[in-house]
Amino acid sequence: MAKASIPKGTRDFLPMEMNRRNYIFDTIRAVFKRYGYLPIETPAMEKTETLLGKYGEEGDRLIFKVLQRGDKLKKLFADLKQKLKLIDKEIDFDQLNVLIVNHFLDQAADAALRYDLTVPFARYVVQHQNDITFPFKRYQIQPVWRADRPQKGRYREFYQCDVDVVGSDSLLYEVELIQIFDEVLYTLQLSDFTIKINNRKILSGIAEVSGEVDKIIDITVAIDKLDKIGPDKVKDELLAKGVGEEAVERIVPLFSISGDREDRLTALEAFLNNSEIGKKGIEELKTVFSLIDDLGLQNATLEFDPVLARGLNYYTGAIFEVKAGGVNIGSICGGGRYDDLTGIFGLPNVSGVGISFGADRIYDVMEELNLWPEDLDQAIDVIFVNFGENESRFVLPWLKKVRAAGFSAEIYPSAAKIQKQMKYANAKGCAYVVMIGDNEIKDGRALIKNMQEGSQENLSLEDLLSYLKEA
Amino acid sequence: MAKASIPKGTRDFLPMEMNRRNYIFDTIRAVFKRYGYLPIETPAMEKTETLLGKYGEEGDRLIFKVLQRGDKLKKLFADLKQKLKLIDKEIDFDQLNVLIVNHFLDQAADAALRYDLTVPFARYVVQHQNDITFPFKRYQIQPVWRADRPQKGRYREFYQCDVDVVGSDSLLYEVELIQIFDEVLYTLQLSDFTIKINNRKILSGIAEVSGEVDKIIDITVAIDKLDKIGPDKVKDELLAKGVGEEAVERIVPLFSISGDREDRLTALEAFLNNSEIGKKGIEELKTVFSLIDDLGLQNATLEFDPVLARGLNYYTGAIFEVKAGGVNIGSICGGGRYDDLTGIFGLPNVSGVGISFGADRIYDVMEELNLWPEDLDQAIDVIFVNFGENESRFVLPWLKKVRAAGFSAEIYPSAAKIQKQMKYANAKGCAYVVMIGDNEIKDGRALIKNMQEGSQENLSLEDLLSYLKEA
Repeated sequence: MAKASIPKGTRDFLPMEMNRRNYIFDTIRAVFKRYGYLPIETPAMEKTETLLGKYGEEGDRLIFKVLQRGDKLKKLFADLKQKLKLIDKEIDFDQLNVLIVNHFLDQAADAALRYDLTVPFARYVVQHQNDITFPFKRYQIQPVWRADRPQKGRYREFYQCDVDVVGSDSLLYEVELIQIFDEVLYTLQLSDFTIKINNRKILSGIAEVSGEVDKIIDITVAIDKLDKIGPDKVKDELLAKGVGEEAVERIVPLFSISGDREDRLTALEAFLNNSEIGKKGIEELKTVFSLIDDLGLQNATLEFDPVLARGLNYYTGAIFEVKAGGVNIGSICGGGRYDDLTGIFGLPNVSGVGISFGADRIYDVMEELNLWPEDLDQAIDVIFVNFGENESRFVLPWLKKVRAAGFSAEIYPSAAKIQKQMKYANAKGCAYVVMIGDNEIKDGRALIKNMQEGSQENLSLEDLLSYLKEA
Repeated sequence: MAKASIPKGTRDFLPMEMNRRNYIFDTIRAVFKRYGYLPIETPAMEKTETLLGKYGEEGDRLIFKVLQRGDKLKKLFADLKQKLKLIDKEIDFDQLNVLIVNHFLDQAADAALRYDLTVPFARYVVQHQNDITFPFKRYQIQPVWRADRPQKGRYREFYQCDVDVVGSDSLLYEVELIQIFDEVLYTLQLSDFTIKINNRKILSGIAEVSGEVDKIIDITVAIDKLDKIGPDKVKDELLAKGVGEEAVERIVPLFSISGDREDRLTALEAFLNNSEIGKKGIEELKTVFSLIDDLGLQNATLEFDPVLARGLNYYTGAIFEVKAGGVNIGSICGGGRYDDLTGIFGLPNVSGVGISFGADRIYDVMEELNLWPEDLDQAIDVIFVNFGENESRFVLPWLKKVRAAGFSAEIYPSAAKIQKQMKYANAKGCAYVVMIGDNEIKDGRALIKNMQEGSQENLSLEDLLSYLKEA
């Protein structure tokens, strides 16, 4: 007999968890919509070639491949068998291995589960460029799969909530995305969160000033670790990566830039004085800050973080990261601007900017800070007790009316003991239990029990709906 | 360069398609909730052993398998290489083939994409039996994958919308599910649809009366084809399947049962007079009909179809199928009662009943009959024209107010030509375009254009929100 279990790193969701997750998704979706973003979906499987080579070597290793089925698989088997037969009897087992792995497995697994929503979105924009209107504002909330080693908070299947706009380099979108961070997290009642912002052009400027433009990635990766490992170790890493001593010395003054936003921007502007791209980065940042200052945010702190780089190499302008206060959980959102995401699929020079909400991390934050709305676990409004065949036949039309009025409602399926029925109602987080037995039918009345307060009322049946509506 | 395309049989969804699909899903979900069903989700991947052997040979072949990744895959490679080395140089290629296929591929693909929502649900109920309350009413709206040959209306990835209750054999749930069929399709404005109902016990009774109880599946499959191939060919098929001539003669009178529901039930009851199980089936049907007659349906015709069997062998009580009138599309919904779904995972004797909505088929019906609500393609309420840097800086706080009032709204990202901006607004199905240029700013006014009617009004800025709210 098959054991009831699921693959490592995957999850089932119970109704209560679903309600909480849907509360997060619905909140995010509503804000995305209000800002003019439209929903799209892409298939779980992409062609393997679409995904491979986009996430670095480590990423490639984490892509789940899906085996061909049916005739195509049969043909591949026949091919393999044929090729095996061609091999000299003096078999070279390494050659055989290569044959099986490269020839067979690679072809047999020509589809793969998407690793993120960004690459499929780039593929989508190119494929449907004649069906969509640019600037194209889309949101996408779908699961992605990564064969990562499962651990607390890291799963092999998890949802991403991405919102991007492609086809415009207007900074108004940076402003809009900051507002979206703010509004989503404020609506979810996170009272303490920081939106960090930087600009990749500033990082390019730093590399330029250092004199080691080619080392921008190494420099970026190293200074991204400043918070974690401190300035000395960053210097060591820079040197280890082959950044010249002189260049490192030119970078070091950065590490001590401090003060409020204005102080830091001014110091950095001076530092980047000889870098056109660096100054452009500062200018973009200033524009965004100025517009946000005008508009105000509900709750977020917008913080300039000149060493914010994030892992992804394709950012070319703004870089975002959001951290929640009061909990020891990594960043809960991120994003940035990329100037050539669709280039890999043959549509160059389309600038875009986007952000992503980490639903699982936000869930963990909400859980830890106990931010769930009170009525989220109340899964049903009304349950009618079942007193037997005649009584339930009498109740059904009333049940129908209650549902038609928009309440979620049901009748217990059999005339079980009242305790059992109440236990069921409790477990389901029911708000009101309605009892209509023999006597009530005769008198045209109903007993209604408020499950939270424990109080009970005897109503005329005619008043049932208005009672519920006013409750 | 990677070509922008997706695997055969899969689909991308454009925003307009998403809006339409979400309209169907949201309608279904709202009804499920109102009837007290709770949402769950299961992972896309199940263990291969959970799925194999549950859908017949044909089904097994259609299951997409997912390759192991990382260390586990490496270990399997090493094992394979080792085994290959152990083979005598006089290689038996069939043996080698078996080794690769059975040893390697089967172990390398120990997870698979779910083929439907029913088997994962059975697995879920058993796995979480201590975390859920019985009767457990759940709904689940998620994609499934089948390696079917793609063709019009048949995809390799498609959504199923399932609603089931397990842990009770009460016929009140049959009644409730019929109401759900009716309410969902009525809400979607399908004016003409038929819910067909039968009971597997009647089919068992027929087999019993024929004297060939062991042949129930063959008899069921054959009489299921009555509409398609006619009574003579059904007889031929029965004989070909080894049903005795005498037994066939005993079944034949069934084919001519006609008249209204009462006539047919009466004729069938007489036919099944010597079958306890058959009579039980009739009694169950009568109860359901009587309760539904009391309650009334919004729009559906509930039709007794004594030859309705459907493919699935696990139904043990009610069998449902829904067909839409006015279109040449197969059944759009189906379902039934099963007494032992969870038995395969070690929890026997749990009765359940459930139905499934075919979202893709319903989409096709809605498309063909043009049943989409008018405002579904209106993806955004308000777009502000961008007249330049100063003007957009002035507009942003107003944009913020419009969004805060619950409207979806945006500003065009750059001061492009007005025609281009209007074209964008049109393509996005925008309801109102707001123009605030230099003069309007001076006068504290706004021009607002109703995109559907083409009319235009000049408002005081203070009146903008109330104008939109009243529109």
